[in-house]
Amino acid sequence: MKIEYTLIKEEKETGARLGKIKTNYGTYDTPMFMPVGTRGTVKSLSPEELKEAGSGIVLANTYHLWLRPGEDIVAHCGGLHKFMNYDGPILTDSGGYQVFSLAKNKKKDITEEGVHFKSHIDGKKLLLTPEKSIEIQNKLDSDIAMSFDECPPASATHEYLKNSLERTIRWAERGKKVHNNPNQALFGIVQGGPYEDLRRYSAEETVKLDFDGYSIGGVANDDESKEDMYKAIEYSTPYLPKDKVRYLMGVGEPVDILEGVERGVDIFDCVLPTRIARHGQAFTRNGKINLNNAKFKEDLKPVEEGCDCYCCKNYSRAYVRHLITVGETFGGRLLSIHNIRFLIRLTEEIRESIKEDRFLDYKKDFMENYQKSKQL
Amino acid sequence: MKIEYTLIKEEKETGARLGKIKTNYGTYDTPMFMPVGTRGTVKSLSPEELKEAGSGIVLANTYHLWLRPGEDIVAHCGGLHKFMNYDGPILTDSGGYQVFSLAKNKKKDITEEGVHFKSHIDGKKLLLTPEKSIEIQNKLDSDIAMSFDECPPASATHEYLKNSLERTIRWAERGKKVHNNPNQALFGIVQGGPYEDLRRYSAEETVKLDFDGYSIGGVANDDESKEDMYKAIEYSTPYLPKDKVRYLMGVGEPVDILEGVERGVDIFDCVLPTRIARHGQAFTRNGKINLNNAKFKEDLKPVEEGCDCYCCKNYSRAYVRHLITVGETFGGRLLSIHNIRFLIRLTEEIRESIKEDRFLDYKKDFMENYQKSKQL
Repeated sequence: MKIEYTLIKEEKETGARLGKIKTNYGTYDTPMFMPVGTRGTVKSLSPEELKEAGSGIVLANTYHLWLRPGEDIVAHCGGLHKFMNYDGPILTDSGGYQVFSLAKNKKKDITEEGVHFKSHIDGKKLLLTPEKSIEIQNKLDSDIAMSFDECPPASATHEYLKNSLERTIRWAERGKKVHNNPNQALFGIVQGGPYEDLRRYSAEETVKLDFDGYSIGGVANDDESKEDMYKAIEYSTPYLPKDKVRYLMGVGEPVDILEGVERGVDIFDCVLPTRIARHGQAFTRNGKINLNNAKFKEDLKPVEEGCDCYCCKNYSRAYVRHLITVGETFGGRLLSIHNIRFLIRLTEEIRESIKEDRFLDYKKDFMENYQKSKQL
Repeated sequence: MKIEYTLIKEEKETGARLGKIKTNYGTYDTPMFMPVGTRGTVKSLSPEELKEAGSGIVLANTYHLWLRPGEDIVAHCGGLHKFMNYDGPILTDSGGYQVFSLAKNKKKDITEEGVHFKSHIDGKKLLLTPEKSIEIQNKLDSDIAMSFDECPPASATHEYLKNSLERTIRWAERGKKVHNNPNQALFGIVQGGPYEDLRRYSAEETVKLDFDGYSIGGVANDDESKEDMYKAIEYSTPYLPKDKVRYLMGVGEPVDILEGVERGVDIFDCVLPTRIARHGQAFTRNGKINLNNAKFKEDLKPVEEGCDCYCCKNYSRAYVRHLITVGETFGGRLLSIHNIRFLIRLTEEIRESIKEDRFLDYKKDFMENYQKSKQL
């Protein structure tokens, strides 16, 4: 079967939704945060550690797996679940974003057919088309596949975005036609930058194609574009069907998860928790902390007091700081566990607050604490 | 209490011994392989993974922990066990070997007082003395401490070695005098290169000082010096008391473990299983294999068929190869688990064979398989 989404509750005051996704690998609650396993592994972590942190769906990258080891090898190994030994649900992106962000020298040639570009690994000429993206994802055998879309830069004009999203809609239709994995859901992606008319148009036209769920793409993640990100969500969700799940792509700052939930988003993903972990940074209720800081040298407290993760239950800041400063990978592993658990715990608390009709209060409290002593 | 060693059985045909070490952190059987956790962590692994692999004593490096984070910080954190969250026994080396192998530009000035050298990290001038080494180890609060010794190069002359080991004996005596951790055993170290007279002299004089156990040091590990290594063991063990445990420092090639056991060694340690893992290499019954090799690309078999480790129970060679070739640390982690389990399983089988008076048969079978298809 494909995934089934059930909307359990929508807050009256806000767009915050409580839901359930039934998959072939268990049923999970939304709002949800998905850890990112780019190359078929969430950096440095085992599937058991992901489960222990409360992970539901995990994301893997089509572009990276297409290049190495290749979708045929993954299929030969029994599909992504078996390949990476993850018996929870897996979502694959379309490769679209990576083609635009990772192509060698960032050069690419966008045609109606697809995108011509050079591999970031060996410079080999490649062509990714909507059909090819779906074909790869069918073979990877993820539970949720994404339509192939163009991800225009934040600087793109209204005119550029309009042409681009019209092509993205045609690409979505082409991808849907060749999609043939009966156990895999296929999502459409809403584009349109920060423009209300474009987001609405993109959402309505994409919904007409009738996908199993909808993603909101093309939101920039840097600090300067936060308002544009929130607008892009606000301008998209009202035109999405209530009975389908909504996924905001590439967003995972705690504050953005809260803003996304308020605007009706169900699923988030981001490389942030593992990336900042490798650099010694940890999320806490009081903002991010940097374990490289000498003040943690003799600190016997856990990375975050009150946290129930494996790192915080067993290790001191002094030990984690030691590992990070001497370059031991176990340090990044411990902080990755903590940071992933932090975001998952955030979504657990968000769900509780929606259940009890106090999401905005929860958000206000969280933001006050988190920003009060923000250190980054 | 300090460790207590009990000799259970000594094979008649060989010097192979079966024994037990009682520690404050459990009782463990010998012959035993100790994984190496240089900086208070066995690279990329959790304490739980070490336990699951069957680890008993784990080794940590005094030199590295002295430099970073410093023994006072480890003591402030409750000692090494608490610091690194390992509730099994821990052995610390003396720092002697590292001073000789890691000192900046390998320059050092050996005096009667100790060794003057420069830190390999920041070039800072340092002095390590027998007293300082013991003082650091007392604070680290390991279960077994090593006496500070000189590790002369393999090229050292008989005359040099004689002077050196006489100083090492004086250093051992000085270290023993200041040792004051009632829960920590202290081992003496036998030196003397490949010379029978020197090894005998060193062993007899060191035993006169009455240590809790004895190490055999100064054995070179390269392929050209294997015969010298075996001689060094043969010339040492006959002069060591039967009721004390014997530890061959820095040796962990499967073949060398077998040769060591045959000559009466109880404990081994080596960085090899984790180091080769990071480079994609795995021990198997049929010799080492290199997962970088393209022939493993579609190989659905586990790294080693019949192995009971977490890696082999859950992942294919194709997946591990993928992780290694794209540079994902989870690949090195999986192979580290396998390689450590491989050496521990080897010692388990060695113990069984001694129990059943068939050690030499076991050794012969193992060597035939292991060397037949040796790939490195």
